[in-house]
Amino acid sequence: MTMILRSSPPSPFGRKTKIAAKYLGLMDQITVEATATGDPDDSIRTQNPLGKIPALVLESGQVIYDSWVIVDYLDHLAGRGKLIPNNSDEKYKALVLAALADGMMDAGILIVYEARLRPEEKRHADWVDYQREKIIRALASLEANPPTAGLVTIGTIGLACALGYLIFRELVDWQPDHPNLAAWLEAFDKTVPAYGETTPE
Amino acid sequence: MTMILRSSPPSPFGRKTKIAAKYLGLMDQITVEATATGDPDDSIRTQNPLGKIPALVLESGQVIYDSWVIVDYLDHLAGRGKLIPNNSDEKYKALVLAALADGMMDAGILIVYEARLRPEEKRHADWVDYQREKIIRALASLEANPPTAGLVTIGTIGLACALGYLIFRELVDWQPDHPNLAAWLEAFDKTVPAYGETTPE
Repeated sequence: MTMILRSSPPSPFGRKTKIAAKYLGLMDQITVEATATGDPDDSIRTQNPLGKIPALVLESGQVIYDSWVIVDYLDHLAGRGKLIPNNSDEKYKALVLAALADGMMDAGILIVYEARLRPEEKRHADWVDYQREKIIRALASLEANPPTAGLVTIGTIGLACALGYLIFRELVDWQPDHPNLAAWLEAFDKTVPAYGETTPE
Repeated sequence: MTMILRSSPPSPFGRKTKIAAKYLGLMDQITVEATATGDPDDSIRTQNPLGKIPALVLESGQVIYDSWVIVDYLDHLAGRGKLIPNNSDEKYKALVLAALADGMMDAGILIVYEARLRPEEKRHADWVDYQREKIIRALASLEANPPTAGLVTIGTIGLACALGYLIFRELVDWQPDHPNLAAWLEAFDKTVPAYGETTPE
């Protein structure tokens, strides 16, 4: 079986699915195909009408998106319970963390888009602040209560990608003020080699 | 058991969770508490650092979000397999439809926010068009291949809420050009009374 993952190296949501695939040992069944979401002629807009990456195209032609559905699907292919815990307490902790991380990435992407997709006179500092405050509150909450070291779930993979995206885009210089989270990310990086292998340049 | 659902009547994501709870017969265990996401002092920002609704506060104090995690949790409480199919083919169709509907709602909300959260001179027509095109492409794809009539899943509940939001906010006058989808929504409305009961005013 060969699946095609439509993604792009800087995408934090794409990175999440790549780490999941590598961690689950599925990457040899997946070909990553570069995607230009801003190009109206890119086939991503027919594969996913939202024009968003990542999207996983199965051999049947069926397309799986968004990233959380892809990770769920990969976990299903790998036998279940590896990235989405079977135990319901652990499961909902993992899913809520995944949603929090997604929200951090969404806010970060909106900040990036503010500069990329608008002429300077149409940019609105209050909107950027509103998004950044979401990230700041999420960081404070996670610093006070970081995930268990060594735990690899849809949630912790997402969090690592969110923190990496803040570094990559220089959105929030969070490391100095969040030592627990910085230590957590360092430990995650050692536990999951796929994290370092997918660092955007 | 009593849970608190932080939401707001116009929120399409909140509506999705209310319909799920009503459909699953869980609404007698849930108190809906109004939320002002724009108010920095509203407790939603400590319950969910992203400051987003809906958020479901359990009796233990644990908070479940985003809407897809809440629906998964409610389905779990109701015994599983009612809104998220157990069969994997049906499950991933339902989850992808849920993601598509979420993307339509996200795009719609970004259009609404463009007017609500920016002074007129900071609004950017290209951005609004970019979001609206996502909705238009999603509508075209769904019109060509509407969900099975009578099917109630996390995906079809989401789609009904997305279509209802387009009507409520007058974002896209989709009904005249999408007769299959209009007929689908009419049938859904008859099958799921909770849909009409949660129509925003």
